[in-house]
Amino acid sequence: MSKEKSKKILEEFGDNLVKQIKKGKNPEIEMTLRNLSNIIFDTKQRILKLGDKTQNRSFFNVAHAKKFLQTIDVASVIKKELLGSGKHSSLRDVFYMVKRTIPGTNVNLVDDQMESDKAIEDLEVITSLSREQLHVAANKNGSVAGKVVIEDKGDTIDWARMGSGGWSIPSITEEIIFKKVNAKYVLYMEKAAVFERLNEDKFWEKNNCIIISSQGQATRGIRRLLQRLYEEHNLPIYVLCDGDIYGAYIYSVIKYGSIALAHASGRLTIPGVKYVGITMDDVIKYDLKKHFIKLNDNDYARIKQVSEYDWFKDNKEWLRQFKMMKDFNAKVEIQSLTSKGISFISEKYLPEKIKNKEFLD
Amino acid sequence: MSKEKSKKILEEFGDNLVKQIKKGKNPEIEMTLRNLSNIIFDTKQRILKLGDKTQNRSFFNVAHAKKFLQTIDVASVIKKELLGSGKHSSLRDVFYMVKRTIPGTNVNLVDDQMESDKAIEDLEVITSLSREQLHVAANKNGSVAGKVVIEDKGDTIDWARMGSGGWSIPSITEEIIFKKVNAKYVLYMEKAAVFERLNEDKFWEKNNCIIISSQGQATRGIRRLLQRLYEEHNLPIYVLCDGDIYGAYIYSVIKYGSIALAHASGRLTIPGVKYVGITMDDVIKYDLKKHFIKLNDNDYARIKQVSEYDWFKDNKEWLRQFKMMKDFNAKVEIQSLTSKGISFISEKYLPEKIKNKEFLD
Repeated sequence: MSKEKSKKILEEFGDNLVKQIKKGKNPEIEMTLRNLSNIIFDTKQRILKLGDKTQNRSFFNVAHAKKFLQTIDVASVIKKELLGSGKHSSLRDVFYMVKRTIPGTNVNLVDDQMESDKAIEDLEVITSLSREQLHVAANKNGSVAGKVVIEDKGDTIDWARMGSGGWSIPSITEEIIFKKVNAKYVLYMEKAAVFERLNEDKFWEKNNCIIISSQGQATRGIRRLLQRLYEEHNLPIYVLCDGDIYGAYIYSVIKYGSIALAHASGRLTIPGVKYVGITMDDVIKYDLKKHFIKLNDNDYARIKQVSEYDWFKDNKEWLRQFKMMKDFNAKVEIQSLTSKGISFISEKYLPEKIKNKEFLD
Repeated sequence: MSKEKSKKILEEFGDNLVKQIKKGKNPEIEMTLRNLSNIIFDTKQRILKLGDKTQNRSFFNVAHAKKFLQTIDVASVIKKELLGSGKHSSLRDVFYMVKRTIPGTNVNLVDDQMESDKAIEDLEVITSLSREQLHVAANKNGSVAGKVVIEDKGDTIDWARMGSGGWSIPSITEEIIFKKVNAKYVLYMEKAAVFERLNEDKFWEKNNCIIISSQGQATRGIRRLLQRLYEEHNLPIYVLCDGDIYGAYIYSVIKYGSIALAHASGRLTIPGVKYVGITMDDVIKYDLKKHFIKLNDNDYARIKQVSEYDWFKDNKEWLRQFKMMKDFNAKVEIQSLTSKGISFISEKYLPEKIKNKEFLD
């Protein structure tokens, strides 16, 4: 979708408000309700999404007036400053662009970034445009390598010729053009150090795959990149995380979405993604028990919470993993595989698990 | 320095211990003392470094025996597994490689990563080799763009053709070969979002410079990259941080080094680096006062602490900045410049400050 299309949608949104005003009506915006009461887990699509409840926001309503103005002003700044110039900016930048005093008052339109962030989310829901299509970026993080050639901002970039670093993934991966994709699957990992190990071993070359890492949670840029490789190039996506509840959650966000971004699930989730490791079964099979790290109270609380999420509570395989974590009173890191040899992960563990299709769903 | 040279130095270290044993001596390692009592600020070189005090560590000494063994074992693993194979690994990986039970006992050689980390630092001091020369990597982070062509692991990489992402900076930048460097200066910034702004605006092309970002503190890989561009290509380095005490500290680590890595200062610090902004004077000149963020107790405590460091306590310009922060009771973010226009930072603020040489030293 081009920025002209996004601009047009925002213009229609504005035109509609102007029409209401000209008719002498109290201008009103209708949008899908975004709070917890309207976030559902769609068991058929298997993604988190918003339900059918809607809300109205009108200008002549003391409880709505400021939010109404914030939404309009953010829409105007995005249309003029971002889509108008073709430039992109961060959530923080948008905050500074709309942080101004309302003429004739001492009141700032926004005082806290939370307010402009919420207005941007409103706009996503109202217009069905993604934050990326509105030219607003989340944080940038992560690296990629593999036999893929892309075109981005007029540059041709070969992910197979990036040395020890890889290509630095931008916050917005919407506009990348894939020129050549030569890979059987994509391996995403939560740790940059593991990426460096696999990249040094040319794992992507030997196994004909693409490797992608973040540091912790996958950014929106990474999630959209994974989704595009999955949807546009039919590549299976495998996720490699620490064998703990946080790894399981990182996986689940890529697969099902997150509560905070439920309205954007369709544009970010990948229901077909698989979890390759580390599992509690790996610990036994590869003799990693001596590298167990004891669980603390936070781990136990988080295991309980995650087990009860709609998207985990009927998943027997994962519930079995969580039970094993508790029975062992332990979690284990990806890097414990190094105890078997520096390249055990790239020469044995991953090729073996992927060949045997030992995945969690 | 090649890995063969590093291997030879480690072999000599081992040979020397074997000689002592063959002579019937209690094997002993002498090394520069690394604790706070021996960390000094060299006012001539203007870097943090270790003083002249030394310590001995011997095998037949109950207080030393375990640390002695840890140092030897880490040296052996590094020589065999890393330098021997030409591979690199993270601190965490080295921990897992040496985490084994001492034969005939129930005792693990290391139980905590802190122990193997310290042993690696010992080796750095003993051998005068950097962690990178020992093939041990710190974390990976950051992006770079500019009119520079490098060769890395056999790939030719043009930093001017990296699209919206940039080249992802590896944890070790020691082995990069600079093939072409066409730039008048290097701009390092602490925020990835600011990098994306400047990259989208092709700031590096218009201003003939190199832009480099981390997210927060500069990694060792970034610091060494900056240092190499400074020393090998005589490029001035300018630092762009938030106008707060943490920004000042990030700058000071690049310039003078840090207490934790005082032993590595010579290989990481850049005494000639300059601070371009944000300063408290910028706030007045560019009318950013309305974007002030109030200081909290932590900010005040940190200002006091940093003001008293040897490398700040006689620096009148910086002390003036710290006083202004306290007088205004405020800090300010780089991104507040966006309130003046989305590309104000790349079209006016930075070119103007750099042209007028408005730097802090």
